Amino acid sequence: MEEMFVPFRGIKNDLRGRLMCYKQDWTGGFKAGFRILAPITYIFFASAIPVISFGEQLDRNTEGVLTAVQTLASTALCGIIHSIIGGQPLLILGVAEPTVIMYTFMFNFAKNRPDLGPDLFLAWTGWVCVWTAVLLFLLAVLGACSIINRFTRLAGELFGFLIAVLFMQEAIKGLVDEFHIPERENPKAIEFQPAWRFANGMFALVLSFGLLLTALRSRKARSWRYGSGWLRGFIADYGVPLMVLVWTAVSYIPGRSVPEGIPRRLFSPNPWSPGAYENWTVIKDMLNVPVLYIIGAFIPATMIAVLYYFDHSVASQLAQQQEFNLKKPPSYHYDLLLLGFMVIICGLLGIPPSNGVIPQSPMHTKSLATLKHQLLHNRLVATAKKCMRTNATLGQVYGSMQEAYQQMQSPLIYQEPSAIGLKELKDSTIQRASSTGNIDAVVDETTFDIEKEIDDLLPVEVKEQRLSNLLQAAMVGGCVAAMPFIKKIPTSILWGYFAFMAIESLPGNQFWERILLLFTAPSRRHKVLEESHATFIETVPFKTIAVFTIFQAVYLLVCFGITWVPIAGLLFPLMIMLLVPVRQYILPKFFKAAHLQDLDAAEYEEAPALSFSRTTDREMGRTASFADDGEILDGMITRSRGEIRRICSLKILSSAATPTKEFRSLSDKGYSPRVSELRVELSPRVGGRGPFSPRTGEGRQSNLGKSG
Amino acid sequence: MEEMFVPFRGIKNDLRGRLMCYKQDWTGGFKAGFRILAPITYIFFASAIPVISFGEQLDRNTEGVLTAVQTLASTALCGIIHSIIGGQPLLILGVAEPTVIMYTFMFNFAKNRPDLGPDLFLAWTGWVCVWTAVLLFLLAVLGACSIINRFTRLAGELFGFLIAVLFMQEAIKGLVDEFHIPERENPKAIEFQPAWRFANGMFALVLSFGLLLTALRSRKARSWRYGSGWLRGFIADYGVPLMVLVWTAVSYIPGRSVPEGIPRRLFSPNPWSPGAYENWTVIKDMLNVPVLYIIGAFIPATMIAVLYYFDHSVASQLAQQQEFNLKKPPSYHYDLLLLGFMVIICGLLGIPPSNGVIPQSPMHTKSLATLKHQLLHNRLVATAKKCMRTNATLGQVYGSMQEAYQQMQSPLIYQEPSAIGLKELKDSTIQRASSTGNIDAVVDETTFDIEKEIDDLLPVEVKEQRLSNLLQAAMVGGCVAAMPFIKKIPTSILWGYFAFMAIESLPGNQFWERILLLFTAPSRRHKVLEESHATFIETVPFKTIAVFTIFQAVYLLVCFGITWVPIAGLLFPLMIMLLVPVRQYILPKFFKAAHLQDLDAAEYEEAPALSFSRTTDREMGRTASFADDGEILDGMITRSRGEIRRICSLKILSSAATPTKEFRSLSDKGYSPRVSELRVELSPRVGGRGPFSPRTGEGRQSNLGKSG
Repeated sequence: MEEMFVPFRGIKNDLRGRLMCYKQDWTGGFKAGFRILAPITYIFFASAIPVISFGEQLDRNTEGVLTAVQTLASTALCGIIHSIIGGQPLLILGVAEPTVIMYTFMFNFAKNRPDLGPDLFLAWTGWVCVWTAVLLFLLAVLGACSIINRFTRLAGELFGFLIAVLFMQEAIKGLVDEFHIPERENPKAIEFQPAWRFANGMFALVLSFGLLLTALRSRKARSWRYGSGWLRGFIADYGVPLMVLVWTAVSYIPGRSVPEGIPRRLFSPNPWSPGAYENWTVIKDMLNVPVLYIIGAFIPATMIAVLYYFDHSVASQLAQQQEFNLKKPPSYHYDLLLLGFMVIICGLLGIPPSNGVIPQSPMHTKSLATLKHQLLHNRLVATAKKCMRTNATLGQVYGSMQEAYQQMQSPLIYQEPSAIGLKELKDSTIQRASSTGNIDAVVDETTFDIEKEIDDLLPVEVKEQRLSNLLQAAMVGGCVAAMPFIKKIPTSILWGYFAFMAIESLPGNQFWERILLLFTAPSRRHKVLEESHATFIETVPFKTIAVFTIFQAVYLLVCFGITWVPIAGLLFPLMIMLLVPVRQYILPKFFKAAHLQDLDAAEYEEAPALSFSRTTDREMGRTASFADDGEILDGMITRSRGEIRRICSLKILSSAATPTKEFRSLSDKGYSPRVSELRVELSPRVGGRGPFSPRTGEGRQSNLGKSG
Repeated sequence: MEEMFVPFRGIKNDLRGRLMCYKQDWTGGFKAGFRILAPITYIFFASAIPVISFGEQLDRNTEGVLTAVQTLASTALCGIIHSIIGGQPLLILGVAEPTVIMYTFMFNFAKNRPDLGPDLFLAWTGWVCVWTAVLLFLLAVLGACSIINRFTRLAGELFGFLIAVLFMQEAIKGLVDEFHIPERENPKAIEFQPAWRFANGMFALVLSFGLLLTALRSRKARSWRYGSGWLRGFIADYGVPLMVLVWTAVSYIPGRSVPEGIPRRLFSPNPWSPGAYENWTVIKDMLNVPVLYIIGAFIPATMIAVLYYFDHSVASQLAQQQEFNLKKPPSYHYDLLLLGFMVIICGLLGIPPSNGVIPQSPMHTKSLATLKHQLLHNRLVATAKKCMRTNATLGQVYGSMQEAYQQMQSPLIYQEPSAIGLKELKDSTIQRASSTGNIDAVVDETTFDIEKEIDDLLPVEVKEQRLSNLLQAAMVGGCVAAMPFIKKIPTSILWGYFAFMAIESLPGNQFWERILLLFTAPSRRHKVLEESHATFIETVPFKTIAVFTIFQAVYLLVCFGITWVPIAGLLFPLMIMLLVPVRQYILPKFFKAAHLQDLDAAEYEEAPALSFSRTTDREMGRTASFADDGEILDGMITRSRGEIRRICSLKILSSAATPTKEFRSLSDKGYSPRVSELRVELSPRVGGRGPFSPRTGEGRQSNLGKSG
């Protein structure tokens, strides 16, 4: 902490770490073979659909100045740049909802100014981007990423919830608009007659709820009982784009029995149509902006800089959660610097800038973990089967599997061979072999379920490389050319998609879960304990939870209210920033330190490390394994701040049950260095890095907390 | 079985049994106080909505000759008669889907005959009813109810599934029709212009899916986490009528922005409008029917008689399942005789006859069990609390509770006081008291959760009386007067309701569950075993299950196909009858007896009684207790043929696991006398009747099987 003001230090460290593995980032990607296409297409769809939706939203809010073409172009451009020269290639970039909101505020401000107006809007935003970039440079140079942990869970979840509320508002507004005549259209057209307008609205209801319900259901496909595992996995991974396709097809069923404009579809100029180039030459107009506005652009710029600083770092953090056992170093400071450059480029091109996005970034890491798992799994199964054919004993089979596992590890040049990962595998194989009885017995495929054994055995590892990020960004760029097809998507499907994103973002948000807890009948509160749940439920009295949650809810309502204020709405990121002093100085006066610690762990308040039992640790390791088709990992990434929740089979009827020290220490994983430190000491399988790696003794989060 | 042809014997036995408790049937009802209104309104809604739906369906199929007024009138009339002079007052009567289908077939046959036509249709159905009644008299007199068990689960579930398929077909047909101009309307009206027609169709989609999804969800309200227990219970019980109200209100939201005919609403004449009396004087026309048709009416009459015989007896059987521990005797033969009289009355009045309905009849019993439980619960809690205030020991508290329980038992005149129910309560209290440690310790409300203790303790008992049946039927009659309000319900909501009924009828149908099993991924079949499931899953090889299920599915398709054949469709009940010889003579040639026994238990094939362990029996007793707000009982009545499924916590990965004899013998409960016999011998709590009761040694099913 005391090193915070040494400039450039964080950037230098980041660059050094990432350069050492830069070559491996590319070779690793190519070595993975065609299988890498699965994560690429997965992330491509997860990126492209929201970006198209945001484009449509911007289109409406900016009266067509910015469209899906611009948001797609920005996402593709920034994605390609970041994947090639960025620090952490697991981070996915894209135009995000806060950007759309800020641009909407700025447009509403600019359009009525006589000396600015819609014509100079993009030029002005160019200046905003310049100022934003300057601020981001400053933050990066001064190592501000080291204090990202001052934004506790409280701020992160409130922000996440606010975004969900704004999404939902957009969905409802969009649906209601389907019953009205849009502003930019000719109200005399046949499709705007009362009957057809009503029909269009009802059709929109059918399509958007259809998409919402089927998309929500498809996300749970992995735990379905029907269909093969492959199909279930496919639906869970690609269900949402698939449903967009299906419901777009459904929208064509009425065919010629309805006028052409029903249902309403995406409105966007083709990038090659005349006039579409205007946006791209905005740099010419930038000097026409009055000086006062150039200076005034600093105000929105601070807000955007705060937003990006916060969002980009948190997205990066989530893509590098403990549970993924990453082997390559993070790069927060350098990535923030690079973001500044990309913001300038976007500003000068007149397109909205991109930043690191949630949940796509953790989704990306997760899909690469699945890829690595498949590669390891297939190799080990093949080895084991081969070995079993030669009448091997159980010990021999495990031995050959270890050998194969060792070969699959591509040791990084700056690191000792990952001896611990192997040792862990060996330990558990021996343990298993002895527990199953006779290590010297000859095994064959009928007595020994290799597939299952190997799945239980393999640690979580991630195929860390740059290829998937590059290709997904390039595919998003390809969407610009596919605009004529994308325009076939009905707008109502996008409203459904907005609602879907809002709902999908809530599970795992402890703020949301506490709100649900307030509405849970007292007689059923014990059911929360029977499932996986956060620590605070056991350690904090219900009344305290209620007061804390109501405070947070009121704060949220204030933030939401501010976004409705015509121009001051621009300042809503300030409210998020304000949470830092509120949390640090005001909340401790109203809540006991221990309760606050459990409800909203903050590193700077923490006591020295607590004892950490090995059993609990192993349990967590198991949680992070690929037990059931990645169902567990699926859950993992949906959690917004990465806390692993335990499954507690005890019926604890009183919410004031005394917690064990061990359980307590679990609660602040993801924010605190002490858990990760202990992790590395005690269970190399979970930590995933050996004691000889340059990052020993520091978890990823602690690295973030201390370097710079 | 050898006594089968002694005429009148069954009727006489039934009458003797029911007359003995006739007075208590009324006094018991009145003694229950205002609380009896809950089951009454519950059953009223469950009866009225389907009857209105069937009325609308008949209205369309018979070109307005029969409407909801007639179906409501028939339901009310037959209900009132049955509740006063019927045998088993738990049985709920109503116009059912098979009746609607048969009337549709008959109308399609009659309308194109020059010497019959729509004018003489009702007169002709009058003759059909006369013949049907004659056949029902014959069946009742000859004691045919004793062989209802020849219709095994195979037939019952196939019939249930067929009804579900026909419901679903009706729902889809209705929805598609919302996009077209109805036949009886003026095609030039504004609401039939293409735009409004399309709008109406889309609105119908919204309303019907809205009803379907919310109704399905509301049924699960009891297991929700949110809201108080009272609210959850209310939504679970009244959710469906509530949703009909809510969506009807929604249908008025567009208000004046749409023409009056959108959405389309129920079409039915008010009973007091001119011309509505025509139906009721059909007896005048009966002699105008040509003699050939009077004789020909015998053909549909046999089909209807078979249907009613089957449906009425099965509904009665389900209302008197083992798990309810009924104390009063059944009355199959006499009820069938009475049904014959009611069919004649309905025929002469020109209204479609009613018969015993599923699932309303078991729902009725269940709601009365909840009532009885509440009465007992409140009394015992009050007693225990009073006792605890006097510093009583645990033993004393239990003692006073036993005393109160004894007072609540209203011994029937023909029966010894139910000593066993008490003994059982005493046994378990003592057992509990000792297990909790010190029987002499002083207890107070903080150390002792009375509410929970009592809920665990109370056996399932049913408030058997006639009042609830009478009042619900009278309320259905009141609906005829409320026709102007009922006509406000949009037709699309009824289509949604049809789909809801189809979907709701499937869980618990083993045929359906076997179909699902066929589509379950082999790797997930073990998940079926982890939940409650039927015995055959463990005892019959998967391949045999598959073949049996495919046979049943093909048979179903043939039955469904027959309903599409213009006039021969009338004969579809023959296909259900044909299942009796198929099951008895053909299936045993293709399947092993043991497998067939588990897949489709038939009493006549059974081996002598197997040993039946007390543990298993006690387990079943527990299943039937009111552990969690009646959630379990809820599940019980949705099962179509009353098999209790066990919760198996073992992970059995092979579907060919060897079953224990005890588990096997569970599979044919509800069809076999031996389980119930053993039940009475071994566990009076489950059997619920003492060894001195006149029905000792015969289960309810066995009584049905042997008397007559």
